[in-house]
Amino acid sequence: MRKVYVVGVGYTKIGRLYHRSLKDLFAEAAWKAIEDAGNNMPQALVVGNETSSSLQDQDNLGAYLADYAGLGRIPAFKVEAACGSGGAAFYTAYALVASGLADIVMAAGVEKLSDARSSGTTSALAKAAEADYEAFYGASFTSINALIMHYYMHKYNIDYEYLAEWPVAMHEYASKNPYAHLRFKVTKEKVLSSRIIAYPLRLLDASPISDGAAAVILASEDVARKITDTPIRVAGVGMSTDHIYVAAREKLDTLVATIKAGEQAFKMAKMEPKDMDVLELHDAFSILGLISLEDLGFAEKGKAAKLFSNGAFHLGDKPTVNPSGGLKARGHPVGATGIYQIMEIAMQLRGDFPGVRVSNAEKGLAQSIGGAGTTITITILSR
Amino acid sequence: MRKVYVVGVGYTKIGRLYHRSLKDLFAEAAWKAIEDAGNNMPQALVVGNETSSSLQDQDNLGAYLADYAGLGRIPAFKVEAACGSGGAAFYTAYALVASGLADIVMAAGVEKLSDARSSGTTSALAKAAEADYEAFYGASFTSINALIMHYYMHKYNIDYEYLAEWPVAMHEYASKNPYAHLRFKVTKEKVLSSRIIAYPLRLLDASPISDGAAAVILASEDVARKITDTPIRVAGVGMSTDHIYVAAREKLDTLVATIKAGEQAFKMAKMEPKDMDVLELHDAFSILGLISLEDLGFAEKGKAAKLFSNGAFHLGDKPTVNPSGGLKARGHPVGATGIYQIMEIAMQLRGDFPGVRVSNAEKGLAQSIGGAGTTITITILSR
Repeated sequence: MRKVYVVGVGYTKIGRLYHRSLKDLFAEAAWKAIEDAGNNMPQALVVGNETSSSLQDQDNLGAYLADYAGLGRIPAFKVEAACGSGGAAFYTAYALVASGLADIVMAAGVEKLSDARSSGTTSALAKAAEADYEAFYGASFTSINALIMHYYMHKYNIDYEYLAEWPVAMHEYASKNPYAHLRFKVTKEKVLSSRIIAYPLRLLDASPISDGAAAVILASEDVARKITDTPIRVAGVGMSTDHIYVAAREKLDTLVATIKAGEQAFKMAKMEPKDMDVLELHDAFSILGLISLEDLGFAEKGKAAKLFSNGAFHLGDKPTVNPSGGLKARGHPVGATGIYQIMEIAMQLRGDFPGVRVSNAEKGLAQSIGGAGTTITITILSR
Repeated sequence: MRKVYVVGVGYTKIGRLYHRSLKDLFAEAAWKAIEDAGNNMPQALVVGNETSSSLQDQDNLGAYLADYAGLGRIPAFKVEAACGSGGAAFYTAYALVASGLADIVMAAGVEKLSDARSSGTTSALAKAAEADYEAFYGASFTSINALIMHYYMHKYNIDYEYLAEWPVAMHEYASKNPYAHLRFKVTKEKVLSSRIIAYPLRLLDASPISDGAAAVILASEDVARKITDTPIRVAGVGMSTDHIYVAAREKLDTLVATIKAGEQAFKMAKMEPKDMDVLELHDAFSILGLISLEDLGFAEKGKAAKLFSNGAFHLGDKPTVNPSGGLKARGHPVGATGIYQIMEIAMQLRGDFPGVRVSNAEKGLAQSIGGAGTTITITILSR
């Protein structure tokens, strides 16, 4: 397999960007990435998106975006894996370069959740759940993740107080991240007293509804060496799926697809969890960040909340988790989130992340989740 | 790049399958393909689909289908390129095997256009056009293709009588294809007197609204040799895009993306048009089949209709075009169509196509189009 490197990154600010369109967001991220890659044009585009068909009435998204952004008549298509679309788009772009089909490829993600045209955002997002047995009965991702959180707290006897540390840390990081969506800090008291939106899950446990776009440019070794002095190696990639209908799963306190995708990525990278300096985990809700730390081998099952509460995984510890602010506070433009995460790890390793930096980070991991743990990708980058 | 082979195919009958669900259709095609591949399970699934988000309220489609069909917790995701989703899914699955990320991968397509849940089928399909400047003003693919047809007839002074030969031939082939949607024959008189649906395009120029699923299994050379005595080599793949907004194109009588994707595929295969024995072209409307013959180098511009009318490209000629009956009469379950076409070429080369066979076919080509020529893949297979 050919070695693959990240040679350029670009992104927009994340937020409720009522004045921006899907294609404008994409074009900004795409051209920033091209500039960052020394103005080298990609030979193909793979774009992750979840809801443009529902909210912008726009399919054929790869060609649509390549056309609008002026990328030329390149191969271009969309990859969809719900909120994990960004990670899946990166996985696909990796395969295009590794196979030799192209030498330089853009993996992008774009999502425009606010200012929806034809149906509600929550309904559009609920299409990532099982239509006949979950969404049809009114289950949303908030309620499904509340079930997971409730089960976890009960099984491991974890007080909510421990879980409330996660949002506090994420908002602290996001306050220093210039492109984050929720840049205000929150206290533990504020989290503990925030509105319950699906028991026991509170408003400040949930990621926001965000708009945004991000792009990374991948290249083969030869091309990467010509483009940049700081190529970041894609050391390992992994992907797995699980029963989409959450009630069909053996366990609620673990996401099996994280374990399996992690095993693939670590094996391919010839690395172990202890080698990681920095992580970007998919904390669409606080509980997912904690469960994912456990599933990836950074904590024993049921222990992550107390460890985190005691200072583990914070800046200065190895690994540091979500110095971007995570989905929780950096924001969650769903199909773009997986690309933001990979881009953030790449910038941490290059040393030019514009927010809180992890010193001398050499290796990092990003996790992208689609649905309630249904489709998961793990990407390991190395300096 | 690792060599890649088709080692198994599976499909459902195409039609208005009101009693079948999206997942049932997929499962039938998937397990037939697995059986055809000696009961070897795929290590990953790439599925092409256009409208499940609109018509079945179902996203996260890769995981959803892998789960329902019992394929296990494999990497699985959807690729979307409108009606060209099947071809794009194959292109992606090819990259997964060629890169070494997997040794055996299923490329599938599934579409359920009848019995739509939440919005009209024509509106759902129109999302493949440009939302703000085409679909918003009421353009459908019927009207856009009628424009192309009208321009072509005018520019090359082609009477409708010549174009009417295409549907006659396609229905003749489909009448002998056991899984085709429109298995009735039509006379030229019937085509000429069929209802005009968007001048000058008549009802019998248009492909039907179809449900169906198809799957092919791709494998690396080592694995392919173990599985089957008749592996079919994927000799070349190509993909290109064009302006999605048709009015932005320089020409209406040619699909530039066909030319570019064809050049890539022929170059990779080290073959020329004259080497092809059998073609499956994307004739969603008769005019597209004729234009594509020209764009791929099988006829001079403006000449295909008269050549076809005089017997060229029919059974017995080299190449034979659309012995399946084409989208026109085999049917057009949009995101699945590209997989049906590649599967049909593979079966022609293996000698076990269940309909009209091209004798001693050694090389063949399939073309998949998304939108009005916006995203196009070309796949060349070889015995």
